Amino acid sequence: MTTDNDPEYPIQVSVLRLGHRLVRDDRTSTHVALVSRAFGCKKIYMAYSDNRIVDTIHDMNERWGRQQEFEVELVNDWRSLIKSWKRNAGNVVHLTMYGINLNKTLPQIKIKNNILVVVGASKVPREVYSMADYNVAIGHQPHSEVAALAVFLDRLFEGRELDRCFKNAKMNIIPSQAGKRVSLEER
Amino acid sequence: MTTDNDPEYPIQVSVLRLGHRLVRDDRTSTHVALVSRAFGCKKIYMAYSDNRIVDTIHDMNERWGRQQEFEVELVNDWRSLIKSWKRNAGNVVHLTMYGINLNKTLPQIKIKNNILVVVGASKVPREVYSMADYNVAIGHQPHSEVAALAVFLDRLFEGRELDRCFKNAKMNIIPSQAGKRVSLEER
Repeated sequence: MTTDNDPEYPIQVSVLRLGHRLVRDDRTSTHVALVSRAFGCKKIYMAYSDNRIVDTIHDMNERWGRQQEFEVELVNDWRSLIKSWKRNAGNVVHLTMYGINLNKTLPQIKIKNNILVVVGASKVPREVYSMADYNVAIGHQPHSEVAALAVFLDRLFEGRELDRCFKNAKMNIIPSQAGKRVSLEER
Repeated sequence: MTTDNDPEYPIQVSVLRLGHRLVRDDRTSTHVALVSRAFGCKKIYMAYSDNRIVDTIHDMNERWGRQQEFEVELVNDWRSLIKSWKRNAGNVVHLTMYGINLNKTLPQIKIKNNILVVVGASKVPREVYSMADYNVAIGHQPHSEVAALAVFLDRLFEGRELDRCFKNAKMNIIPSQAGKRVSLEER
């Protein structure tokens, strides 16, 4: 499972999105997928089918490039996914305000090469808490799974995810003090 | 402006939310407000009136406590707000993928005691880029203003925001390895 890992980013992270509620969570689920892609995850598993998210990610990959083959995959049986993940010697980290504070737990997590980060929308089934290797709280106040995922990944990758290179982009941003500068690639 | 600052958190941060689109951005704006509250900001200014967000924050404060008087304020003229902020010796930081990478810019930002963080939804008016003291990119890939705000605050507060104490809560989480444990306060 770890043979194709980037030596600069030896930890491969995938995301499992649970509990999407129709309409209400459309934008939030899209943001979860966009953060997963932008912060260098390998894949997002969605327990709910939404072609718009697949289209959005495809469009982003076309316009803004890829740092690897980031994919959206529909998963019908997330319990099996979690179980097989653990069997294959990967960590399962569930982000929840009820867990152990990130500040306390991150130094103690025995990071394996393949992490599955589980983020819920509304209520997450109880069994997720017991199936996860780690229940990690990005603070103990209610806020946002988008924020929780982003902060977890930023800490895990120690900020280097913001410098990742995305290849084969049609558009590349030229960082600017003020304004919007973009270079367009001929392909 | 700085006399009532918490000595442990000498930097006061407020958030300005621009460009909310009806329905489409409802949940995202709510998440921006929740992150602002949970990560210890002082106030969120919204350039759009939505009583549901005010009600949600009020409900959170009642149930989960306050670390200070976090407020939602409707702002009709955000240009005046930004101008007066700068006159009163505060920083204005605009989060945008077109700005300078956070990894590069945060060590160089001359942090003042009062920061206004500007986050947009869809297209942000050009003048925001020139009015801001700093245009900061949480990476140069499109993702989420909720994620951008959370990562910026986590870096700014060096992670301490996750340990903040919220007072007068009806419910307090007892951090748990697995499961949901809450203590209820009699009041």
